[in-house]
Amino acid sequence: MQLIEKRGRFSSCIAKRTLLCLLACLAAIQLQAQTITSPDKNLSLKFELNGGVPSYQLTYKNKPVIKPSKLGLELNGLPSLMDGFTITNTEQNTVDSSWNPIWGEQKTIRNQYNELLVTLSQPAQKDRNIRIRFRLFNDGLGFRYEFPRQKELNYFVIKEENTEFNLAGDHKIFWIPGDYDTNEYPYTTSRVSEIPKLQKQATVQITAQQPIPNPSVQTPSMMKSADGLYINIHEAALENYSAMHLNVDAANLKMSSHLVPDAVGNKGYLQTNTHSPWRTIVVSDKATDILASKLILNLNEPTKYENVSWIEPMKYMGVWWEYFVAGKSTWAYGTETNVKLDQDFNKLTPSGRHGATNENVKKYIDFAAANGFDAVLVEGWNVGWEDWIGNWKEEVFDFVTPYPDFDVEELERYAADKGIKIMMHHETSASATNYERRLDRAFEFMNRHGYDAVKTGYVGQIIPRGEHHDSQWMVNHYIHVAKRAADYKIMINSHEAVRPTGLHRTYPNWIAQESARGTEFEAMGGLAPEHATILPFTRLMGGPMDYTPGIFQTDLSYYGTGSNQRVNTTLVKQLAYYVTMYSPLQMAADMPENYSRFMDAFQFIKDVAVDWDDTWVQEAEPGDYVTIARKAKGKNEWFVGGITDENPRTATIPFSYLPAGKQYIATIYADGQDASYDKSPQSYTIRKVIVTSKSQLKQRLASSGGVAISIKEGSKEEMRGLKKL
Amino acid sequence: MQLIEKRGRFSSCIAKRTLLCLLACLAAIQLQAQTITSPDKNLSLKFELNGGVPSYQLTYKNKPVIKPSKLGLELNGLPSLMDGFTITNTEQNTVDSSWNPIWGEQKTIRNQYNELLVTLSQPAQKDRNIRIRFRLFNDGLGFRYEFPRQKELNYFVIKEENTEFNLAGDHKIFWIPGDYDTNEYPYTTSRVSEIPKLQKQATVQITAQQPIPNPSVQTPSMMKSADGLYINIHEAALENYSAMHLNVDAANLKMSSHLVPDAVGNKGYLQTNTHSPWRTIVVSDKATDILASKLILNLNEPTKYENVSWIEPMKYMGVWWEYFVAGKSTWAYGTETNVKLDQDFNKLTPSGRHGATNENVKKYIDFAAANGFDAVLVEGWNVGWEDWIGNWKEEVFDFVTPYPDFDVEELERYAADKGIKIMMHHETSASATNYERRLDRAFEFMNRHGYDAVKTGYVGQIIPRGEHHDSQWMVNHYIHVAKRAADYKIMINSHEAVRPTGLHRTYPNWIAQESARGTEFEAMGGLAPEHATILPFTRLMGGPMDYTPGIFQTDLSYYGTGSNQRVNTTLVKQLAYYVTMYSPLQMAADMPENYSRFMDAFQFIKDVAVDWDDTWVQEAEPGDYVTIARKAKGKNEWFVGGITDENPRTATIPFSYLPAGKQYIATIYADGQDASYDKSPQSYTIRKVIVTSKSQLKQRLASSGGVAISIKEGSKEEMRGLKKL
Repeated sequence: MQLIEKRGRFSSCIAKRTLLCLLACLAAIQLQAQTITSPDKNLSLKFELNGGVPSYQLTYKNKPVIKPSKLGLELNGLPSLMDGFTITNTEQNTVDSSWNPIWGEQKTIRNQYNELLVTLSQPAQKDRNIRIRFRLFNDGLGFRYEFPRQKELNYFVIKEENTEFNLAGDHKIFWIPGDYDTNEYPYTTSRVSEIPKLQKQATVQITAQQPIPNPSVQTPSMMKSADGLYINIHEAALENYSAMHLNVDAANLKMSSHLVPDAVGNKGYLQTNTHSPWRTIVVSDKATDILASKLILNLNEPTKYENVSWIEPMKYMGVWWEYFVAGKSTWAYGTETNVKLDQDFNKLTPSGRHGATNENVKKYIDFAAANGFDAVLVEGWNVGWEDWIGNWKEEVFDFVTPYPDFDVEELERYAADKGIKIMMHHETSASATNYERRLDRAFEFMNRHGYDAVKTGYVGQIIPRGEHHDSQWMVNHYIHVAKRAADYKIMINSHEAVRPTGLHRTYPNWIAQESARGTEFEAMGGLAPEHATILPFTRLMGGPMDYTPGIFQTDLSYYGTGSNQRVNTTLVKQLAYYVTMYSPLQMAADMPENYSRFMDAFQFIKDVAVDWDDTWVQEAEPGDYVTIARKAKGKNEWFVGGITDENPRTATIPFSYLPAGKQYIATIYADGQDASYDKSPQSYTIRKVIVTSKSQLKQRLASSGGVAISIKEGSKEEMRGLKKL
Repeated sequence: MQLIEKRGRFSSCIAKRTLLCLLACLAAIQLQAQTITSPDKNLSLKFELNGGVPSYQLTYKNKPVIKPSKLGLELNGLPSLMDGFTITNTEQNTVDSSWNPIWGEQKTIRNQYNELLVTLSQPAQKDRNIRIRFRLFNDGLGFRYEFPRQKELNYFVIKEENTEFNLAGDHKIFWIPGDYDTNEYPYTTSRVSEIPKLQKQATVQITAQQPIPNPSVQTPSMMKSADGLYINIHEAALENYSAMHLNVDAANLKMSSHLVPDAVGNKGYLQTNTHSPWRTIVVSDKATDILASKLILNLNEPTKYENVSWIEPMKYMGVWWEYFVAGKSTWAYGTETNVKLDQDFNKLTPSGRHGATNENVKKYIDFAAANGFDAVLVEGWNVGWEDWIGNWKEEVFDFVTPYPDFDVEELERYAADKGIKIMMHHETSASATNYERRLDRAFEFMNRHGYDAVKTGYVGQIIPRGEHHDSQWMVNHYIHVAKRAADYKIMINSHEAVRPTGLHRTYPNWIAQESARGTEFEAMGGLAPEHATILPFTRLMGGPMDYTPGIFQTDLSYYGTGSNQRVNTTLVKQLAYYVTMYSPLQMAADMPENYSRFMDAFQFIKDVAVDWDDTWVQEAEPGDYVTIARKAKGKNEWFVGGITDENPRTATIPFSYLPAGKQYIATIYADGQDASYDKSPQSYTIRKVIVTSKSQLKQRLASSGGVAISIKEGSKEEMRGLKKL
């Protein structure tokens, strides 16, 4: 059923068993309830109609996960799709196949589920009908609404989707407040019942935000029940639909879908022969299973791209962190505060602090080339930065005109000579109309000058005015940009876009996203030590994150500019992120001069892979710790990353994935004895030991510390003198 | 001051006299009032500050035209630009120059005015300042707000512009109701004071309309005072601003600006070093002077296009009228009512009535080629028409995929062989975002297949949703399309766009617009016989109209499809339109088989020019009649058109513009003795006579009839036997 596509060639490892169980649709004998179980029988899904109202419930090992919850949609100007239904058909299918992602955490992904497809008709609406498709995996449930082509329904406008998620208890929840425009909030951990009283303080100030006034949270929403069940609610394959946030009825422990409205308050424009995104509930009694789940990816469509050979995971540096840390340099070239694209930027008053100069960019290129990087991102290269933000300005950038001190052709030659790609930067200032209008020209410029990847940004209030970062129009915009980029063989790394839902399976050149509070906030108040232990359970459930790790100089007072900001991790925790924060696109975000001071630790960043054959989530508890091991794609190299929150801990790290009976050299980057994120973040040790599949490491992590391990085959020569672990 | 640009070469006939009259700006001696007069002294403009509030008044031959009226703007979130002003500087200039349009009604246009530029500061707002620039021509006044770059004002949002036009009497007015989305209303003639009670009935149903609830009218707004003064209010150079409608305070005979809001209710996003469009008041005691006015063009900027040689006036036919008149054929290919761009249109069920088939298009090409036309428009050639309207659907057309029965390459060859251009059609269904996204590809497709002009359409509710046809975003959209088209050497003929304001001077490839109730409505209830006598005083004040005249078969019951519709003109009136309805792009809108039945009358359409050396408005009264004579560009050929409303009349037509002492052959196309639009529209006579500059024709026009005359040099042979007029 699922085609296996891997860099243009087709794998033959399809395993498919389909049981078609078509139940008779006799009007007289309407089936009011249907139950399916997951392949391993742990999960059970029951669908039923109660007085014409559809509902579902989910149990895990006989414990309720979702109590009976209604399904349906309200439409604008048409009778609702909430009630008055009869079941006119049901189908069950069983699928067990596997597929190979173009890049990812595993070489092969198994797609195994039992499916229930229910057709519901409204006799009072001339048998207008919808379908609800449930797919029950061992790791959770996905379901979606389907709207077949039919006489009685062609075009319709969604007033609201009313999908309920009735919780079975007052769970612990890791949440950020519902907001139409930003997902860059810090996480709050509380009981579900506490959300209303905490919502206001959780809604910190963000550039361009539109908080939902009623109690609500964003997805992926990570919960843990009192009896140790981990439950994650999100969505998969968000296309041509607005993003789903969750209303929280704290009194009744009920969540329900809240779609993001457009400029006139509508929540979706659909045309039949379509469907909603999948609503996903990943469930397990082991936190590690949540992180290992591939349910969301499985619910996305395989790519339709015919040629994907140009899509390559990569490691990059960038003229970027220096804009944040020290007022060292600026995106803008001029000191003016009112510029227009058609003016002569040569006539601006240079501030003397412009970051994207030929000289500075060459410094990064030199260092990146000397250390085996693929690319250097350059932000602030193009005209328009003097007043790019806060003005709801449409014609803010043109994406093709460099500042006077950035020589496109000279740098193109210089980078090419050193084997480095310059990564394009398209900050749109959230002026999506301006970007679409200029998109073809921007991509042609990139093709002409040898750029094959672009970091896009959407800081600010959206234009078209009245639309939101998470509304249907913008959801379609991001996909349009990804698809159009593919026409030009360009990879996209989007920042400030709607959070991912596994669409990188379908659009594998949309290689990473930020879409959460990332490293930049370490320079703007700092991230909580627990932050990065929550992200894998929330933001990263949907797809890779360009978290931009690798900050070695964590105490920003170092720069002597009066800043008392601090990156709230140890140096080693920054190394561990390259494994715990999955992304096929990894930045070494600090400045060359800082890496030069710690070249022994920097070696891990040089070595670490960005594409993987396999992944083992070894330890995990949201808000506390994460330890993950991965095998590099196509190489006998393994990398381990472990992180902890503000509490020091001892990680227990097995190596059982290693081929049995062989010895490997493990280089262990550990927090120093006296290390702590706030007192001694740069205290670390590096040791080499011999490991086998039977080894187990007990490693102490400092407060907000980490551990990073690289494991390679070694010659006898190299192993000589090394101790066994 | 004005550069004369004509197809790439510069004329040297600049006549410029500038009197710089810089008045001292001493804070102690503030000038509270300033007066300037028009070069001919007929008009007088007085500007003054009353208690810090700016106002102006205008007189013509000492009669009040505009009584003291306030000026200013309200801003969002900032103190207003309405009051608290002091005059800090005034300048006066005199300009008398001339320039040659690339195409137009005259070879040379004189630009003569006296100017007053007032700088106004708000001491309470740290001397925040604006300027108001008045240009007083012999034919009227233009003024605009200017917003200089300054510390105290960078970006601002307009809440409303409050420019008043206090009328001096309860004038007769020719008006359509204020509406954010359509200008396709029929005209109502009333007193200004009657507007409130007539507004509802004037607001007939139109596809996609958003009437302004309060009493209001659109511009160009044509008025006539009780003592015979003609007053026309409009705007010039509408760029980066929303269109101005006029609130009507009937009790006080006061009009005031009403800008079109955007999706969130704002009326304009500006960045200083900018200005508003010009507000224009054309005034005369002769109606013919109103039509002859070039004030609006003079207030527009010369084009910045470097090469304009590819911009060519033209005459075209089209697969078009047959879609309206008889259900003869359809834009859509399939009978389905739910299509998507990515589906296989070969699999649709053909209705058998698709108009844009190879065969039918060739029929038009053959006829157009045989009769000296330049182009054939083909509507309905591209996929998406099955459900293109009424669904607020974004991805409605892709502009590059033909229906299965329209062979782009075959027709490209066929047309090229016959010397005919196929005119592209881009109906956007008002989905402007979709059009912008695909614009470059659409224009590349045109370049690749030899199309050099496109008719664009904006039928429906605008996307970006919440924007309007006349809001700032869409105003910028139309200009973006025109400018981007120029990059591809493509001419634009826009339908359903914001009404023109003379921008064809700046963007001469935006060669024509519809933007009013045009011929298509003759098939949808009919146009009033007076309609085309009003349009030159209203819609055409802003620029050429693609009225699509030339309907010979005016009684639509002829087609035997049960239609009782009727084009409310005689056949000859349709001929006269080619002269009275100025456009460099003229369609012969009827079908070849109808022209074939009246080839002697069709000769006028074949002969008539579309570009002119000079124009003489000979007779005119809005709502009653218009007679215009024009000299063909670069040729000793003249054409005359005269039309009347429902009342028969005798036109008095001199030929004094002809070179003295020479004889010419005039071919006079006249209504037949028994002609009338409703009883005998196809009754006409054609006669040839000799005319000289001293001739004068008295010609009877039937009810809703016309007269059309072509005048050429003739050989003795040709003149033999012809009578003198």
